[in-house]
Amino acid sequence: MANKLTLDSVRDALIREEDSIVFSLIERARFPYNAPAYDSSFLGNGLSIAEFYVRESESLQAKVGRYQKPEDVPFFPKDLPRPFPPTKDSQSLLYPASASVSVNEAIWKFYFTELLPLFTEKGDDGNYASSVASDFVCLQAISRRIHYGKYVAEAKFTDAPQDYSTAISSEDRDRLMNLLTFVAVEEAVKKRVEKKARLFSQNVTLDENDSDQTKYKINPSVVSHLYDKWVMPLTKVVEVEYLLLRLS
Amino acid sequence: MANKLTLDSVRDALIREEDSIVFSLIERARFPYNAPAYDSSFLGNGLSIAEFYVRESESLQAKVGRYQKPEDVPFFPKDLPRPFPPTKDSQSLLYPASASVSVNEAIWKFYFTELLPLFTEKGDDGNYASSVASDFVCLQAISRRIHYGKYVAEAKFTDAPQDYSTAISSEDRDRLMNLLTFVAVEEAVKKRVEKKARLFSQNVTLDENDSDQTKYKINPSVVSHLYDKWVMPLTKVVEVEYLLLRLS
Repeated sequence: MANKLTLDSVRDALIREEDSIVFSLIERARFPYNAPAYDSSFLGNGLSIAEFYVRESESLQAKVGRYQKPEDVPFFPKDLPRPFPPTKDSQSLLYPASASVSVNEAIWKFYFTELLPLFTEKGDDGNYASSVASDFVCLQAISRRIHYGKYVAEAKFTDAPQDYSTAISSEDRDRLMNLLTFVAVEEAVKKRVEKKARLFSQNVTLDENDSDQTKYKINPSVVSHLYDKWVMPLTKVVEVEYLLLRLS
Repeated sequence: MANKLTLDSVRDALIREEDSIVFSLIERARFPYNAPAYDSSFLGNGLSIAEFYVRESESLQAKVGRYQKPEDVPFFPKDLPRPFPPTKDSQSLLYPASASVSVNEAIWKFYFTELLPLFTEKGDDGNYASSVASDFVCLQAISRRIHYGKYVAEAKFTDAPQDYSTAISSEDRDRLMNLLTFVAVEEAVKKRVEKKARLFSQNVTLDENDSDQTKYKINPSVVSHLYDKWVMPLTKVVEVEYLLLRLS
């Protein structure tokens, strides 16, 4: 995120994140669903391979300085180690209390129970380590996109504090959700991410006419569904929760 | 890799890996070069953040079952923990002695000293954890592509054992390198990966005519250079080393 917060700079970051999400899903789709990786009785320690992997990876990434920025929100924030390299003092552009806003529990749930079966093939090829490493990249990209909502909310609030203050003071979530919803923009986002999924998951060949654009590595409509059903609604939840803390 | 080894199935895997490499480079290019992440005096333990991160990540991935397949070759193979989930007995299609073939030292070197400065912007934005996590994904994709060379060599050998046996017996590396080189194929690969880089790193917009295809997130020619200078030559080194063990 740039030093000066504008709605345009936030929008650029959101659009860039779309590419990351599409790439990450395409990479996870190299492997089938691989159910044993999500079975919490598999390792014998009560954790699934996926949960064990994400917990350990977050701990490692925290050690080397991740989770200092408002958009990088850990899935397992308890007992994360402190970073041991000297970290740059990143002056946050956000209201400090907002650090606590996280919808990662909801993301974790929809990702594994609803989204993953939609874009992976059924089956088990034994590649659990590669699968959960890819899951982690997907989760991080989706979570980052959704928690950018904090910047969206701050930029919108700064642009028109009067519009939001009344609704914030009366804790009127419905009114806030209404103020934050722009149907035409959301429709355009859904179309754009579907187009990106089509472009990025096609099988590219050198023959201009033969580029078999009907065979996609992921179904492009799954990505617009992901945005429609989860990414955009949860981003607005983050925005509302952020705003409710904004005047506290 | 499928159960039956054919040159066609190997080629499909190589082509699919091109997409992974391009995606991984685009993702790393979100951040500038970030020199302190590669400075071995930075953490105080003699390791750079990058090396510390890769060592710890490989250890974690080994625990959950990675590095069981011939194309997944660790950068730091010493003292890797044994996997603790039950792993599927993956019957290797390769000659067993070939497990020792690795050019990861060369990959590590060219990636950090030559490739990384070519596709990242100069500068330091403090995002070291995200940068080295992306480096690890790049390194894994490039290494996997290059070590697929073991399958290429096995398929080519099986197709025409007579052609290779004399050169293998006399340990004639030049002759083997010659047998394995197909200039027209290599030129096509370079063109295809450059096209993929163009397609996948463009800024996608909904306006058909306005899609600003001149602004790429990475310079497409860097990817063909990567293939020309490192990926294809090192793949052939892997093939030669594999074949030299093939009759032992």
